[in-house]
Amino acid sequence: MRICDLDTPSLLLDKDIFDHNLRLMSQRARAAGKLLRPHAKTHKCSRIAKEQLAAGHCAGVCAAKVSEALALLCAGLPSVLITSPVVGKLKIDHLCACLATGAECLVVVDNYDNAAALSAAAGACGRTLPVLLDIDPEMGRTGVAFAEAPALAHRIAGLEHLHLRGLQCYAGHLQHLPDCTRRQAESQRLMRQTAQIYRGLQNEGLQLDIFTGTGTGTAAADLKIAEITDLQVGSYCVLDAEYAAVEDPQNLSFEDFRPALTLLTSVISTNIAGQVTVDAGLKALYYTPAAPPRVVRAAQPLPGWRYDWFGDEHGTLFFSGQKAPALGEYFELCLPHCDPTINLHDSIQVHQQGQVIEQWPVDLRGLGQ
Amino acid sequence: MRICDLDTPSLLLDKDIFDHNLRLMSQRARAAGKLLRPHAKTHKCSRIAKEQLAAGHCAGVCAAKVSEALALLCAGLPSVLITSPVVGKLKIDHLCACLATGAECLVVVDNYDNAAALSAAAGACGRTLPVLLDIDPEMGRTGVAFAEAPALAHRIAGLEHLHLRGLQCYAGHLQHLPDCTRRQAESQRLMRQTAQIYRGLQNEGLQLDIFTGTGTGTAAADLKIAEITDLQVGSYCVLDAEYAAVEDPQNLSFEDFRPALTLLTSVISTNIAGQVTVDAGLKALYYTPAAPPRVVRAAQPLPGWRYDWFGDEHGTLFFSGQKAPALGEYFELCLPHCDPTINLHDSIQVHQQGQVIEQWPVDLRGLGQ
Repeated sequence: MRICDLDTPSLLLDKDIFDHNLRLMSQRARAAGKLLRPHAKTHKCSRIAKEQLAAGHCAGVCAAKVSEALALLCAGLPSVLITSPVVGKLKIDHLCACLATGAECLVVVDNYDNAAALSAAAGACGRTLPVLLDIDPEMGRTGVAFAEAPALAHRIAGLEHLHLRGLQCYAGHLQHLPDCTRRQAESQRLMRQTAQIYRGLQNEGLQLDIFTGTGTGTAAADLKIAEITDLQVGSYCVLDAEYAAVEDPQNLSFEDFRPALTLLTSVISTNIAGQVTVDAGLKALYYTPAAPPRVVRAAQPLPGWRYDWFGDEHGTLFFSGQKAPALGEYFELCLPHCDPTINLHDSIQVHQQGQVIEQWPVDLRGLGQ
Repeated sequence: MRICDLDTPSLLLDKDIFDHNLRLMSQRARAAGKLLRPHAKTHKCSRIAKEQLAAGHCAGVCAAKVSEALALLCAGLPSVLITSPVVGKLKIDHLCACLATGAECLVVVDNYDNAAALSAAAGACGRTLPVLLDIDPEMGRTGVAFAEAPALAHRIAGLEHLHLRGLQCYAGHLQHLPDCTRRQAESQRLMRQTAQIYRGLQNEGLQLDIFTGTGTGTAAADLKIAEITDLQVGSYCVLDAEYAAVEDPQNLSFEDFRPALTLLTSVISTNIAGQVTVDAGLKALYYTPAAPPRVVRAAQPLPGWRYDWFGDEHGTLFFSGQKAPALGEYFELCLPHCDPTINLHDSIQVHQQGQVIEQWPVDLRGLGQ
């Protein structure tokens, strides 16, 4: 099947670019003596997670929610770290189901009472749960403040059925900072503070072996932090227009990672001069005015074309100095932010040299619990 | 099962409010001598479409895309109008599959070549396809301009395997205009222009029996247009914060329709004063700053609380003058715009007086083709 035989809208993955991105991140991790722990929240696809592991130098993969972790473990992934606290009886029951798979499942904690509940639940099913203390990188989403981290770490380490393996610090707010110098300096400042706590706890006798964090935007900087053991990079595998806009809006790349993911859309109405209506709107892509979708062809920007959303079902392609497209004509959009867009689709069409070679299910789609 | 036994995030539907909304719209249509053709793009749920039909005074239901229409027809809905043009061989093949169900399937057209392709396809499968001419309400998304509509209608009426049944005019850009007088006057101006074309074509001998259009925001005004036969209302059944904000941001209602849909979310981190982190972000709800989610309890706004998104997976609840919530505490959010939010979920938990009585699958979720 060729791309032009697909129905629209369809999510496309360029296998050559995807493979390039995976190789590049693995090479960089290996050169720095680090492991990767790729984040599956980006792609919600156990097949992509397996490709990431196969590319090498991985400690495991990450999930944002316990429902994602369970799906990944059931799909055969050998080790999953849940990067948000798992709170409440129902979710802790699901965490116990993760442990029952026999594979490795780690979870972060940022609260003593939650840690005590996790310990009790792990004990009740006869297991020890490996946990990481989540450190707040001055962002206020999850995690404990730097100043309070050492004391909380010791209290959690004392809980009978938990095994405190280390620390997590993920500075999500820095990933898309356009000023590269500031992005890297800020990230290193936060990671050094976390590293200091990590060393301090080790010196105080805790057997910590994991210091995990970072994202695609700060990976280059954080690879230089000696204590970091693994990188929770997510977007690098498919990239998106938001990351590309950080570095250079004219080109589509970020630190040599390139957008592998596009949305195939087609023209359904042509009655207005200078614009046509296509069949991809807010239900087919996540939109942010900070980095709107880019109209592309063969992975290159298509000059003279601009996409804007036009409701839930439709978008508009504006063109200037171009031949008006025909009804039914196909276009590709490079997507603003890959994570919430992939979560809208049931499958990804994988293509190589114009041929659709595989269809990968987005099997974690909608798993937000 | 009680609401407090559900996992989070979960989409909740208050059955009593939902039934009230359905009754109210049916009563208004009946009083005006009109039918309804409720739009399933709002809820993506064939069960809700059946409830809407059961509430009475319906000509059928609407779908935005041919894939939605096929799912609705396969679920047993007797008549579906596709409100966007169906363009290209693949999509026309799916339209033929709709016809093959034996149920009624209508589609809009705004282009002669597309109409000719539809006629050829209908002929090839031995059927006549009922179509409506789509009129552009000066919005530029789909439809033909008023001035060109009569000539195109006659050409389409001459196509062998099409049956031109009438006109569609849907002014999506007016639905959320906050100035009620302007919203109603603008809608009536556009509908009167369409009505004039409708009468003109009838006087010229075309046997038209459908003039469909309007939405929840303009229904009250358009019910007064004599020629309109049916109303494509969508949001009224579950309503949302965006419609509520049109009328009165302090209350949660729009012309006596009330929000039936909420998102159940729970607290996962409590380390920052004056705010907590909850487990619902951009993957669980559509966000617009124009009408952010409202924190509610028992269908009433909860004063002193404010939600903001905090990434794809999380949100923040800010509170002032309130007791800090506990880890795991549940909250409900009244949603900005129901359509793209429902499309993120696999099912809707239907509740009545605190008890979860049914689970309705969002069986059209992700059908955007």
